[in-house]
Amino acid sequence: MSVNAKYLLTRANVPPNIRPLQPADRLAVERILESTRNFTPSEIATALELVDAWLTTGAASGYHCLVVDTSDTSDTSDTNSAASHPDVRGYACYGPTPLTDGTFDLYWIAVERASHGTGFGRTLLQAVERDARGAHGRLLLIETSSQESYGATIRFYERNAYTLAARIPNFYRTGDDKLVFAKNL
Amino acid sequence: MSVNAKYLLTRANVPPNIRPLQPADRLAVERILESTRNFTPSEIATALELVDAWLTTGAASGYHCLVVDTSDTSDTSDTNSAASHPDVRGYACYGPTPLTDGTFDLYWIAVERASHGTGFGRTLLQAVERDARGAHGRLLLIETSSQESYGATIRFYERNAYTLAARIPNFYRTGDDKLVFAKNL
Repeated sequence: MSVNAKYLLTRANVPPNIRPLQPADRLAVERILESTRNFTPSEIATALELVDAWLTTGAASGYHCLVVDTSDTSDTSDTNSAASHPDVRGYACYGPTPLTDGTFDLYWIAVERASHGTGFGRTLLQAVERDARGAHGRLLLIETSSQESYGATIRFYERNAYTLAARIPNFYRTGDDKLVFAKNL
Repeated sequence: MSVNAKYLLTRANVPPNIRPLQPADRLAVERILESTRNFTPSEIATALELVDAWLTTGAASGYHCLVVDTSDTSDTSDTNSAASHPDVRGYACYGPTPLTDGTFDLYWIAVERASHGTGFGRTLLQAVERDARGAHGRLLLIETSSQESYGATIRFYERNAYTLAARIPNFYRTGDDKLVFAKNL
């Protein structure tokens, strides 16, 4: 137990690192998506398709994927530790919306369930906004479901200054609307 | 001139035929998209990407493409005439919306400019609705631009019982909103 406590203490002192998603992170992303209990198997498969597109062709895929990594990269005793056992807590996938001038979509964002409430989501979202702004983005859109299980997600967007721009009734299925949140960058 | 008149007269007597888009139709589709003067070169390139996905992998692509063809298929004097010189007047591309249960998107619909007002658009749209219903579709969505040049397009959707379900301000560019029209099937 003391080892775990030390581990947690050490890691808590490391500011989370946002970096591009790498091949070694794929399993962690799958684990994160499953941990949230918010996604169906086909949603997880679709999320991983976007990750694979990014890993295969990079920005040319139209997708950019970032992770939040709490590995202690200052620990030089094993220079490969971060790469072989990345402490990936969450990820985001975004990209420029095709056929628009300056609109970006946040396609997926997920933080492992055990790390909810730690600020990793906000750190990821701010990194996406910064990257989009850097690529002349002026509008960031996030689509989500009106289901009750997405209540915390919706409050997360609202806390981060996203406003409800549109609602498509019965989009996902009867009684499950699509909500589109928007933020001017 | 008399040849053209005869041609037009003959063709006018042939009810338009709706059929799946075939490889020989690709050039006609490109011509139709250009004739409308509503699409930018990148929009036309994107439209053709969807056509190519359909031609390469069929329904597995997630896209279905139909054309309206006024060739006189009862003319058996040259059985290849329809295939080698298809009289394609318009096309539509639609498909099931990923991760939804029963929602379909009409991705593109275009009728050659010289045939606007002839009812080919409505015939195509009704074929899409029939196909979507046959595939357990319950909702058909159409996204379009709020630009003035799309005024006739918007009135076309409204005449066909589509209602404005959502509007995303400044989606395409500043001052150019995305409109989402919807119809319950």
